[in-house]
Amino acid sequence: MARKVTAEENGPYAIDEDELEEQGGGIYICQCGLSDNKPFCDGSHTVTADEADGVVYEYDDDGERTVVSDD
Amino acid sequence: MARKVTAEENGPYAIDEDELEEQGGGIYICQCGLSDNKPFCDGSHTVTADEADGVVYEYDDDGERTVVSDD
Repeated sequence: MARKVTAEENGPYAIDEDELEEQGGGIYICQCGLSDNKPFCDGSHTVTADEADGVVYEYDDDGERTVVSDD
Repeated sequence: MARKVTAEENGPYAIDEDELEEQGGGIYICQCGLSDNKPFCDGSHTVTADEADGVVYEYDDDGERTVVSDD
């Protein structure tokens, strides 16, 4: 369960109490790397649910999945 | 200024007011993809400062950088 993704940003995203309050008290941070609304989750991780252990995938812009490595 | 990184997690990380308070009121989320303490920043992004526009890099475990694509 892993995938290669492209990170475009090169600095951290700061979250403080004011922003958390604006967001209603809770924030979900993307960890799958596939969100189009980074650093926030947009639900894209659902496509990773059936990834196999030990395999690294890559997803193209159409959501097509290919195997990068399989140990 | 972009790089391919491997995302190991396949679900979002939730941040609420309690956690923010524990962290002293502020959190920095990794966006460069290189942190060893994801989803939090660990300062690893400093190595990306001299990345060129239009180039996609990859960093190995030793921090060695290679060019993946150069448009």
